Amino acid sequence: MTMNLAQKLIQSHLVSGTLEPGSPITIKIDQTLAQDATGTLVMLEFEALGLPRIKTEISAQYVDHNLLQTDFKNADDHLFLQSACRKFGLWFSRPGNGVSHPVHMACFDIPGKTLLGSDSHTCAAGSMGMLAIGAGGLQVAMAMAGMAFPLKMPKVLGVELEGQLPPWVSAKDIILEMLRRQTVKGCVNKIVEYYGPGLAKLTAMDRHVIANMGQEMGATASVFPADDAVKAFLKQQQREQDFVEMKADEGAHYDENDTIDLSKLEPLIACPSSPDKVVTVRAVVGRPIYQSYIGSSANPGLRDFAIAAGMVTGRRVADDVSFDINPTSRQLLEEMSRTGDLTKLLEAGARLHQTGCGGCIGMGQAPASGRISLRTVPRNFPGRSGTVEDQVYLCSPEVATASALKGVITDPRDLDMDYPTFHEPEQLPDFRPQLQPPQEIPVAIELIKGPNIKPLPDFDKLPDTLTGPLLLKAGDNVSTDEILPAGAEILPLRSNIPAISRYTFSRIDENFYQRAEKLNGDCFVAGGENYGQGSSREHAAICSRYLGVRCVIAKSMARIHRRNLINFGVLPLLFDKPDDYHRLEQDMMLEIDQPIGQLKNDKPIELKIHLSGDSIHLRHDLSEDELKILEVGGLINEVREQHSITPDQTA
Amino acid sequence: MTMNLAQKLIQSHLVSGTLEPGSPITIKIDQTLAQDATGTLVMLEFEALGLPRIKTEISAQYVDHNLLQTDFKNADDHLFLQSACRKFGLWFSRPGNGVSHPVHMACFDIPGKTLLGSDSHTCAAGSMGMLAIGAGGLQVAMAMAGMAFPLKMPKVLGVELEGQLPPWVSAKDIILEMLRRQTVKGCVNKIVEYYGPGLAKLTAMDRHVIANMGQEMGATASVFPADDAVKAFLKQQQREQDFVEMKADEGAHYDENDTIDLSKLEPLIACPSSPDKVVTVRAVVGRPIYQSYIGSSANPGLRDFAIAAGMVTGRRVADDVSFDINPTSRQLLEEMSRTGDLTKLLEAGARLHQTGCGGCIGMGQAPASGRISLRTVPRNFPGRSGTVEDQVYLCSPEVATASALKGVITDPRDLDMDYPTFHEPEQLPDFRPQLQPPQEIPVAIELIKGPNIKPLPDFDKLPDTLTGPLLLKAGDNVSTDEILPAGAEILPLRSNIPAISRYTFSRIDENFYQRAEKLNGDCFVAGGENYGQGSSREHAAICSRYLGVRCVIAKSMARIHRRNLINFGVLPLLFDKPDDYHRLEQDMMLEIDQPIGQLKNDKPIELKIHLSGDSIHLRHDLSEDELKILEVGGLINEVREQHSITPDQTA
Repeated sequence: MTMNLAQKLIQSHLVSGTLEPGSPITIKIDQTLAQDATGTLVMLEFEALGLPRIKTEISAQYVDHNLLQTDFKNADDHLFLQSACRKFGLWFSRPGNGVSHPVHMACFDIPGKTLLGSDSHTCAAGSMGMLAIGAGGLQVAMAMAGMAFPLKMPKVLGVELEGQLPPWVSAKDIILEMLRRQTVKGCVNKIVEYYGPGLAKLTAMDRHVIANMGQEMGATASVFPADDAVKAFLKQQQREQDFVEMKADEGAHYDENDTIDLSKLEPLIACPSSPDKVVTVRAVVGRPIYQSYIGSSANPGLRDFAIAAGMVTGRRVADDVSFDINPTSRQLLEEMSRTGDLTKLLEAGARLHQTGCGGCIGMGQAPASGRISLRTVPRNFPGRSGTVEDQVYLCSPEVATASALKGVITDPRDLDMDYPTFHEPEQLPDFRPQLQPPQEIPVAIELIKGPNIKPLPDFDKLPDTLTGPLLLKAGDNVSTDEILPAGAEILPLRSNIPAISRYTFSRIDENFYQRAEKLNGDCFVAGGENYGQGSSREHAAICSRYLGVRCVIAKSMARIHRRNLINFGVLPLLFDKPDDYHRLEQDMMLEIDQPIGQLKNDKPIELKIHLSGDSIHLRHDLSEDELKILEVGGLINEVREQHSITPDQTA
Repeated sequence: MTMNLAQKLIQSHLVSGTLEPGSPITIKIDQTLAQDATGTLVMLEFEALGLPRIKTEISAQYVDHNLLQTDFKNADDHLFLQSACRKFGLWFSRPGNGVSHPVHMACFDIPGKTLLGSDSHTCAAGSMGMLAIGAGGLQVAMAMAGMAFPLKMPKVLGVELEGQLPPWVSAKDIILEMLRRQTVKGCVNKIVEYYGPGLAKLTAMDRHVIANMGQEMGATASVFPADDAVKAFLKQQQREQDFVEMKADEGAHYDENDTIDLSKLEPLIACPSSPDKVVTVRAVVGRPIYQSYIGSSANPGLRDFAIAAGMVTGRRVADDVSFDINPTSRQLLEEMSRTGDLTKLLEAGARLHQTGCGGCIGMGQAPASGRISLRTVPRNFPGRSGTVEDQVYLCSPEVATASALKGVITDPRDLDMDYPTFHEPEQLPDFRPQLQPPQEIPVAIELIKGPNIKPLPDFDKLPDTLTGPLLLKAGDNVSTDEILPAGAEILPLRSNIPAISRYTFSRIDENFYQRAEKLNGDCFVAGGENYGQGSSREHAAICSRYLGVRCVIAKSMARIHRRNLINFGVLPLLFDKPDDYHRLEQDMMLEIDQPIGQLKNDKPIELKIHLSGDSIHLRHDLSEDELKILEVGGLINEVREQHSITPDQTA
């Protein structure tokens, strides 16, 4: 049987199941990564599993999110993570090394391997011929413990790339074109596999740009072949020996097909406040901007910054624009310093920020009230910038830089300049010595837990009859940024569920926490399509559960959040008839009798509405394993039962 | 009559008064500067004065403090300041240009001129043969309006520098030695004038290090001659034509005298949590550190960073240390990038931060709980780092870097390496084009006021009988950081007095605001020696007044805060007998009958203690002009009366 590359990657790691789309499978995980905002829970969870040392080939912990240390909390978390790496055998990447995805790519990506990461943009490693998937932290902790990762076998969408990008159009425009076509929910439970002659001129880092934002279409993963471009990247990183050619079989089929003629693309931009509100830059030129922002895992490459430097050489950015340069890695910043690109940007008036995720996750760089911000980042969900009613547009470095020079949204083709050329350096200094390797001989190390690092709360099983109000009715495409925001105020509480839970749903209803606290009991939440898209933060699920949410009912759900709900014992149910969404109103008293019993039947689940005596039919798409987890109240409870661990031992 | 340099500078700007120490004088101000955390009030105050345009030779507004934009507030403030500069005719320095003091030095310092700045470290410009003084924002607004600046004629302390610094000892050690001798209150109402053969090898930037921290001794100003070193600096900045030789007359006398033999100095360090807790590094070697920090206005020079880069070349900082590099200006960062010093620091594992004040004012980089932080910054007041019970040590870049390499406090002389050499570049690119110049023809410009920018509250006159509780009794050396903290949470409220007042005295008593709110009336505060040292933030006085504090009684007061209290109508009184401090207890009901009448008498002021029927004698050191200001309830009221402006017109 001929296989496409996605199928080959899965087949070679398959632990259980078959490659039938939609059927439950488990796969072996070779590598994991975590960032600090999700990593502290990963480490607490791994600690709770009671193993002395990780069992993956490579696991790495990055510190890239919580870099604005406004009090002890973030610094304490960094120390905790470092101590946990020493204790459990992970690589530790200190603050200042950069964003997990490009750093992992430089140091550890190996074609043909699987990577699971507690960051939704882990999928970026698909650029290197890997199967790379974002997941909740507990899932990553389980993978670190050597357990296979469960998922539904995705459909594979084959996207053939033809032609060659015209000047001023770059990889970001390819993924924006994909988002225009697919929307933010078009690729749920799909792997997007790119192939075709158009790949020839796309470097590994160009492909990273595309694979990274596959997450924004809801894709489980994005996959590129490991070809000469990947070989060149590994050579640049002094890791040529890690190269393995990976490609689809000749004549392989895809479950779905699409084609993009790169030569027909033009500069695109995603308007506020969703990554799929894509229009041509031409359609919005002339709008005055406050800020232009280069960086993040969505445009992390030397090229992205070098093109910007080339464009501003000998020019100065508009007086009214904050031109924010966010270097994505230590290696990149060093190289920009070496080549003089950094000097060019500074001379032009750019503002250089700390290496890391920065404003992309609301850690600084919030725009002024009512002003437009152009960013090369992957997401523009409402308020994610830190400014509540923000106006964030997503675009390429070319568009961001052109607009910074002009002070208004500008199509770079309208500038009176030649498109700067860029050549990847053949070789860069080895990045790995900047990371702290696992100790070869494990030593007895005390975990360093500052006062803000609290144990995970214990959660009990579902009651025999689940009764409670519909505490919130949300709309379509609710992101985890809306369920539990990031930002400089909230992120430092990531190791403290009781404290961070106060912000649950605050972007949608600022009184949600007070209402949940007053209720002090079980409740329901309803949503529309694609509930829980965006970031992989399991805190969104844990805090929902912590405040009493025992069941979320939606028209459809995003993959990672759905699984996070299950992991923490929250029922993720679907309207049998999507229109029934309109029959629910906030504060209605709802009831599901014998929820576990009903889940085990093949029949629709009955949701009773107390006031009217009516009921609505719900359905589920849970695997048997997922059902077992819900039955015991969550994955940690299940692992404890399997290993006879009592909560006290792990607290 | 022969004069020292301080006297010559004052004499040449004297508007009223005589050079008799202690007598009130007023001087003409040639230049002003403001930073963003104090500047928004300066601009609101200047607006209230109703003038169309500034009357100084140069006024500049820097954005260097509130650079962590976690929501709209700081960004809105930056836009407001930019619009105010356009409207009123100031230079505007955008975020990313750097710390006000080194940037002003590079662009505008001219020997022989006076500079008033709403930042306490404005005194750094004394390194360039200027008379440079820090003051409250309202004082700076008045100077912008062309009004003479009132002060008490200071005594002049002449410090003769002999000999030459040994290797590994640098300018920071000179000012730490001064602090060891003088303590944080030794130079109140004094100008420190440095002279002697030891100056020959100190560059203008070395002198900046020393002049800058004159503020930490309470000095009104520090003064250095403008000699070949100053000429070389101006040449480097392409401003040789601005050089004017300035020096004391041959045989000039000083009110007080001291001598330092530079060849006898060794690496020094100020222990937590006061800049005068100075010991030799040898005395504290070996303590494990969490953080080592280079930067701030106290060590802003190329040399400071180049020495660090030289020390770490080919080495790597200890795994457990965060080696935080805080570039102080765009020019410096560009140059470090050009010379390769930046690359060396990055290769060694340093963490590069945004150009600006950063962690020095608690804007990020807070240390972990209970861990030691070594910093080249000027202050280590309790909690200023952002971490409440912090352990901040002040030291030279040499000590900070040696300790970063070793992971413990280290005397750099104990390293097995040669002292790196550094030569100032003869010429740097002109910095001024990076600033936005005043519009030559003033145009009608709307001030851009975001929703967080609130008008200054109106304050009324003192009552005929001032009665109220002693709401707080504080100790010695209370800094304005303790009266009103900085930090990333609080600084964004600098344009909003009602909001920021919630934090008044929170470092000393977290319930102060609640108690004041409950009282909702007039009250007293008492302190020991040197009340109000540190930062020039007038918010410390305004918020005290806003919460009802009508009188502060102390053993002695720091110059800037004392004047800020007067400006906003708060009585700054002194114990006639310092021991009476012990007779006061918190919550005692106190009374001053006819306060203004008593101030005008030559007799002691009677402070009645209600409960006991006792009374305590107080005194004041107010000039006639200051008394007039208090009589009408503050300086803004006085200006309004003089110009017949009603509060409504200025709101």
